[in-house]
Amino acid sequence: MITLGANQYGKAEVRLVHVSRDGDRHEIRDLNVSVTLAGDLAATHLTGDNAAVLPTDSQKNAVYAFAREHGVAAPEEFAVLLARHFVDAGPTIQRARVGVEEYAWDRIPATGHSFVRGGREVRTARVTHSAAGTHIVSGLRDMTVLNTTGSEFWGFAKDEYTILPETRDRVLATTVRAEWRHRAREVGRGGVAGETPTPATKDWDASYAGVRGALLDAFADTHSLSLQQTLYAMGSRALSAYGEEICEIRLSLPNKHHIAVDLTPFGLDNPNEVFHAADRPYGLIEGTVRHDDADPAEEAW
Amino acid sequence: MITLGANQYGKAEVRLVHVSRDGDRHEIRDLNVSVTLAGDLAATHLTGDNAAVLPTDSQKNAVYAFAREHGVAAPEEFAVLLARHFVDAGPTIQRARVGVEEYAWDRIPATGHSFVRGGREVRTARVTHSAAGTHIVSGLRDMTVLNTTGSEFWGFAKDEYTILPETRDRVLATTVRAEWRHRAREVGRGGVAGETPTPATKDWDASYAGVRGALLDAFADTHSLSLQQTLYAMGSRALSAYGEEICEIRLSLPNKHHIAVDLTPFGLDNPNEVFHAADRPYGLIEGTVRHDDADPAEEAW
Amino acid sequence: MITLGANQYGKAEVRLVHVSRDGDRHEIRDLNVSVTLAGDLAATHLTGDNAAVLPTDSQKNAVYAFAREHGVAAPEEFAVLLARHFVDAGPTIQRARVGVEEYAWDRIPATGHSFVRGGREVRTARVTHSAAGTHIVSGLRDMTVLNTTGSEFWGFAKDEYTILPETRDRVLATTVRAEWRHRAREVGRGGVAGETPTPATKDWDASYAGVRGALLDAFADTHSLSLQQTLYAMGSRALSAYGEEICEIRLSLPNKHHIAVDLTPFGLDNPNEVFHAADRPYGLIEGTVRHDDADPAEEAW
Amino acid sequence: MITLGANQYGKAEVRLVHVSRDGDRHEIRDLNVSVTLAGDLAATHLTGDNAAVLPTDSQKNAVYAFAREHGVAAPEEFAVLLARHFVDAGPTIQRARVGVEEYAWDRIPATGHSFVRGGREVRTARVTHSAAGTHIVSGLRDMTVLNTTGSEFWGFAKDEYTILPETRDRVLATTVRAEWRHRAREVGRGGVAGETPTPATKDWDASYAGVRGALLDAFADTHSLSLQQTLYAMGSRALSAYGEEICEIRLSLPNKHHIAVDLTPFGLDNPNEVFHAADRPYGLIEGTVRHDDADPAEEAW
Repeated sequence: MITLGANQYGKAEVRLVHVSRDGDRHEIRDLNVSVTLAGDLAATHLTGDNAAVLPTDSQKNAVYAFAREHGVAAPEEFAVLLARHFVDAGPTIQRARVGVEEYAWDRIPATGHSFVRGGREVRTARVTHSAAGTHIVSGLRDMTVLNTTGSEFWGFAKDEYTILPETRDRVLATTVRAEWRHRAREVGRGGVAGETPTPATKDWDASYAGVRGALLDAFADTHSLSLQQTLYAMGSRALSAYGEEICEIRLSLPNKHHIAVDLTPFGLDNPNEVFHAADRPYGLIEGTVRHDDADPAEEAW
Repeated sequence: MITLGANQYGKAEVRLVHVSRDGDRHEIRDLNVSVTLAGDLAATHLTGDNAAVLPTDSQKNAVYAFAREHGVAAPEEFAVLLARHFVDAGPTIQRARVGVEEYAWDRIPATGHSFVRGGREVRTARVTHSAAGTHIVSGLRDMTVLNTTGSEFWGFAKDEYTILPETRDRVLATTVRAEWRHRAREVGRGGVAGETPTPATKDWDASYAGVRGALLDAFADTHSLSLQQTLYAMGSRALSAYGEEICEIRLSLPNKHHIAVDLTPFGLDNPNEVFHAADRPYGLIEGTVRHDDADPAEEAW
Repeated sequence: MITLGANQYGKAEVRLVHVSRDGDRHEIRDLNVSVTLAGDLAATHLTGDNAAVLPTDSQKNAVYAFAREHGVAAPEEFAVLLARHFVDAGPTIQRARVGVEEYAWDRIPATGHSFVRGGREVRTARVTHSAAGTHIVSGLRDMTVLNTTGSEFWGFAKDEYTILPETRDRVLATTVRAEWRHRAREVGRGGVAGETPTPATKDWDASYAGVRGALLDAFADTHSLSLQQTLYAMGSRALSAYGEEICEIRLSLPNKHHIAVDLTPFGLDNPNEVFHAADRPYGLIEGTVRHDDADPAEEAW
Repeated sequence: MITLGANQYGKAEVRLVHVSRDGDRHEIRDLNVSVTLAGDLAATHLTGDNAAVLPTDSQKNAVYAFAREHGVAAPEEFAVLLARHFVDAGPTIQRARVGVEEYAWDRIPATGHSFVRGGREVRTARVTHSAAGTHIVSGLRDMTVLNTTGSEFWGFAKDEYTILPETRDRVLATTVRAEWRHRAREVGRGGVAGETPTPATKDWDASYAGVRGALLDAFADTHSLSLQQTLYAMGSRALSAYGEEICEIRLSLPNKHHIAVDLTPFGLDNPNEVFHAADRPYGLIEGTVRHDDADPAEEAW
């Protein structure tokens, strides 16, 4: 018999820019918000009865209205408010996920209301809320980093298709995608453990800056024998420094190959100075680093 | 204590074009192949010992060499050969996944070796192989479809943020992402049930064309009360028609809103004739349709 | 002294989908329309006096209103109507350009109102109108073509950086960008020569299909010694076949390199069967083919 | 009669990363280089005789070899070296254009060889060289800026399609594309006027930073009555401050509409605090600001 399996729906990519004013000094937060709801949705699939379907248009409106009513203190906090709202609103929605991308802006020096888009990386947050609790995952993507030296790759397995030479000095570059899960006690009221502090009591921006900095530092000062080793170093650095707050980090690191160009046909050497930055194919290294006391919480992702 | 969790690695996006010649009549297959391996990889993460790491460069070479040795009969079959190779090659790799995207080419009429890129959709395959068996998932993405009428949306839940008017006639458009899992007996030698036929005995191209056609037909001839209803109709149509072969289908359908433009300020009516095709935000409807006799096989995805 | 030079403004990328109904059989045209106006616009630049500035929002509204009032017979004709409107509307705009991209849809077989996005190429039109007349340029982009044989490259110039081997048999692939200018007499009332037929009297869809077919055929049946030779063959084929209608064609052909993979390290030959489809860098061949009786009309582009 | 018109060819998007070492302190320059050559190329188009065609592969090799031989001091200087090389190399190439995009990297604090991609904007240079001289155009793209206040739009022309309300306070945002042409005397040996200094004597990085800063400052401190007024302010600010060096600047400014969301259906006001950042359509304002003593030099662009 044919049956309906897992399903969810929502409004994706609501582009919200929020301006707050403190006299002549303005602040902006620039978000891309996606809502995903799951619950008692069989009827609309099977018969087109939409009585349990809150329109995605209403979800979009809620995003904008919440920005006015509550402001946008941090992506994580804003997402928690929204996720709880959708579950609390009625009996048909059992789980809400709110994903946020935040784009950075820098103040143009010596101005109060002028900004320039800064950095290349995108800050992310995803919040999952149900009766069982709230999970908060923070992250970033598109942070591209490069070491011009301090990276080796040798002693690897060889098969009949292996012709790659070993190297004791290569450029190592990657575009970091990282997501880290906050411990339940960080999440606050309604959280997994039902503890009291609200997420509003946490400085999410400082937390983000701290983890980002740990990732960057570990990439920079790890003498790397493999990108896997660098991945683990990055993850464990973040967990070591912020283990009170976070319990698990997932990293996806494309190996953006920089190939030293063979200039010998032109009578030139190339002492790791001239590189071709290749597009495809690329290695892709993915891994999780976690505290062994972390609950699995697969539903948080 | 900080520990290494789930991890995998491989070469992504190997762009392979294979030409086969039967006299003056050539055929091409244009693939983008990604390999992902998992196994005993703790050492490289923890110490940089790469003895268990087959370079991603070797994986890329295997893709090209296999194309020469075995040809490219179909994405599914090619992926099975590769996935089994990586697991069979040695004791350190326990699971291999091979993902393939295939880009369509049409023969330029009345020619033997000239082609034009056809269609917009991308055919996909992902094969997962381990000692436990082989899973094959076929699919497509970027198939954009539109009904100019025959779609309604009304009777939905309303909250304080609901202002969307009900409609009895709207444009319904979506860009289909669909993946369907083949039953174990389709997979053949080394498959879950260890049955005898190899995947080479199956006409994967015909299978793909059949499921694609079922999805297209169901989209076209379902009078839709919600995009969820259309999703279920598409999935169940495919399972009904090809239930001997496939046991589960997952669909992701962005609701590409076409908004009838209000022309009354200009003294004009608009009887569903002039639409603004919006980019963002968009609804996103995701769901699974399955035979209730299908094993869960979450590892196949 | 600092002065204002050439300037223009307008609304870009108005996404218009137009549905026409003939009983149960519907037709759609899916356009992306960009308007560019030039004229007496110094005041807004120098002082912010906007008296001569028709808002880009009004331009967008005109696109939608014109679709209702006049339908969308063909991109060229729709663009002519709009371009003339903006110039005729008042004394401050001297020149209007309307650019259109059209996306193809195929009817799902045996249906009246269901469609699937077809082809990969985008049809284009750009119309430039001023008191001096009207120019119409039709075109296409993103038409990717490939010959598996019938292409050579040898006898080329060599310098100290030349290591490319000569070849008598290679894959030749390119993504065609082509634009062709229609003769003034095709443009009709208000055209350069003030001739009588309106563009409505021309079957622009048939004209487009004809030129596209000529380009495709010339690509396919030209035995190519260089991509430049293929470019000229494509352009001259179109001009030969449709020289009564068009007088000039501009082509931009990226050489999408397909590199035969060296499989000898793996004990395999590669008789032009297995290729790596490279992303970057790529050759880029650009050229114009024209009738020598064509007026220059640089302002048409 | 059908004839060959303007034509050119070259290698596009050569991705070059250059590392220079001063002990433990490394520097990188990350470029995307495109070469375009024009000259006596009729034969290859008409007959496939390639005797005058230097392969685009050789052009690519020259880019890499020049990086080794000459280093990469600045995009402008590197492009001048290459452009002169291709023209000087033989009699068949009369004009070479070299376009460069440069991607910014920031040093990770307190490290010698670790970097993170910085900023979002791309620095550009294009150099055109022929017997008539050398032109250098510097520029940037993808610099997105936003003022939360200090922008008005009213007093505009109105037609039958105008419904846009006037506003005395709006968000103004744009993604700047700017290119500025250097005076001939900046270009040096082989330049238009044949003057003596080589481009190596100029601090191109400082020049770029200066013009970029002037554009940013003018955007920020111009109280804007139209985006055209802001465009002119930006251009004239740069020319005023750097008029000894540059004589013309071209700007392309998409008006990235931020639409204050109407929250009144939800019982909320919106004092310019909550905005929808729209994708399409967008206004597009383009203009040139120049010194009236600048020679036209259309061939520089």
